[in-house]
Amino acid sequence: MRNVNKETITQAFMDYCAADTEPRLRFILERLVHHLHAFARETELTHEEWRSGIDLLTRTGHITDAHRNEFVLFSDLLGLSSLVDMIHSSEDATPSSVLGPFHVLGAPLLPVGGDLIRNNEGDPLVVSGRVKGAKGEILAGAELEIWQTAANALYSSQDENQSEYNLRARQVVGADGRYCFSTVRPVPYEVPTDGPGGEMLRATGRHAWRPSHLHIIVRAPGYRSLVTELFPDNDPYLDEDAVFGVREGIVMHYEPHESRDDLPADLEIRDTIATPYLMVDFDFVLAEK
Amino acid sequence: MRNVNKETITQAFMDYCAADTEPRLRFILERLVHHLHAFARETELTHEEWRSGIDLLTRTGHITDAHRNEFVLFSDLLGLSSLVDMIHSSEDATPSSVLGPFHVLGAPLLPVGGDLIRNNEGDPLVVSGRVKGAKGEILAGAELEIWQTAANALYSSQDENQSEYNLRARQVVGADGRYCFSTVRPVPYEVPTDGPGGEMLRATGRHAWRPSHLHIIVRAPGYRSLVTELFPDNDPYLDEDAVFGVREGIVMHYEPHESRDDLPADLEIRDTIATPYLMVDFDFVLAEK
Repeated sequence: MRNVNKETITQAFMDYCAADTEPRLRFILERLVHHLHAFARETELTHEEWRSGIDLLTRTGHITDAHRNEFVLFSDLLGLSSLVDMIHSSEDATPSSVLGPFHVLGAPLLPVGGDLIRNNEGDPLVVSGRVKGAKGEILAGAELEIWQTAANALYSSQDENQSEYNLRARQVVGADGRYCFSTVRPVPYEVPTDGPGGEMLRATGRHAWRPSHLHIIVRAPGYRSLVTELFPDNDPYLDEDAVFGVREGIVMHYEPHESRDDLPADLEIRDTIATPYLMVDFDFVLAEK
Repeated sequence: MRNVNKETITQAFMDYCAADTEPRLRFILERLVHHLHAFARETELTHEEWRSGIDLLTRTGHITDAHRNEFVLFSDLLGLSSLVDMIHSSEDATPSSVLGPFHVLGAPLLPVGGDLIRNNEGDPLVVSGRVKGAKGEILAGAELEIWQTAANALYSSQDENQSEYNLRARQVVGADGRYCFSTVRPVPYEVPTDGPGGEMLRATGRHAWRPSHLHIIVRAPGYRSLVTELFPDNDPYLDEDAVFGVREGIVMHYEPHESRDDLPADLEIRDTIATPYLMVDFDFVLAEK
């Protein structure tokens, strides 16, 4: 230790870790410090750059509160969130995608066929499909959580002019595994750019846009929970999502319809939905645990 | 982008960076994201571990304020601060060591031979030496900054019972390049353990002790500023400094003395210093810019 140098310091760190350190923690720290030190050596990181990094982390911490987590935004903008999703995505299942910072617990239950449009502006959209296992088995009783932006590109948790659970719901599928709800077409939006995350975007000439998407979590007993997003196939930002969330398998086609006769029989607003409307059919496939 | 996968996402991040991104920033981001993604892939980082990491960063940000920076502490405890020091340390100069979080600007000037003991308890210590260049040239007019713990193991900036600049000074050397001051022997202390940094120490069975040290910054026009620490050669924590700051070249010997006749002629408290006292002679060597 007394003669620690820039080559031996990584091992010196590991030598400090007690033998009874929890093995998974020890492994994670070993890889973390290996990469942190390699980063500093390869860049010959200067004291001034180190101070800039500390300052960036400090400001990221100070802008973070109960409603906004700028560390999550950095994880998203650096591709880490999507990478963690992809590492744990099952090849047999619907691709997972980023949870994002706008999920809130406690959204009300919506019956199959229920409506989320209510007073929201936007193009009417009917989404339905089934929840299945990888062998095609119907997952009766599976639960969906759904959340999305309103027409002003804000989630209800960002906007005090929306009710607490506007455009948020849980839905439990019946024996046929089928979900169905009416909503408005989500809109593309920019991630927040008034903090350190925005500084990085500007410094690298990147925009902050995400393609429009529906957030979905699907859970069924005995199966791995799926956290994903659904993107329309005609969104202009599909190939340049600021947070790397798009996967081919979760891009879906919004089909325009003129006649209410095409609507599912159990749609709550079947007789009143504005026309034309959009309709999409998308099945979720979960992997077994 | 639409078909980004866990192998291509690192390049996808770089493809987002505009061609006119400042080259040094581009290089640093490229290495950062390369290592961040490799870390996630090699550990197969789970969503739960990712959330724990986000939570740790969030709490680290929230405990950080104007007087305490927990990100600096993590950088110290992970060896990053010392590594940056070692990367930029000149082989021809006195080794550099961590600045730490307790440096404050504006300490008063102390004449060569001046006293910092005043009302402080502790073993009297006289430190003197010269400031030189790598070829042995005397650096007349060089300025030192000095700061250290009081007997209660706290810096003045941590302790409202100490005056603002207790055991802190600047000293400008004369034509002979010589500095000299009397102080008390610093004591070992523990880095703060009540935050996320302390959690990591406990989880890995590490202690929080730093060997006792004097903090010194030495500046001279035309030379690289030296940020370093001086350690006594009999400190029990020399081989296990929690922040990896010890280098052989900045360990010094405190020589006990009984007689005031051994004291430098210009020592302000030459006639009143308590005996026995300790004395050390240490020359600082700066590298040219």
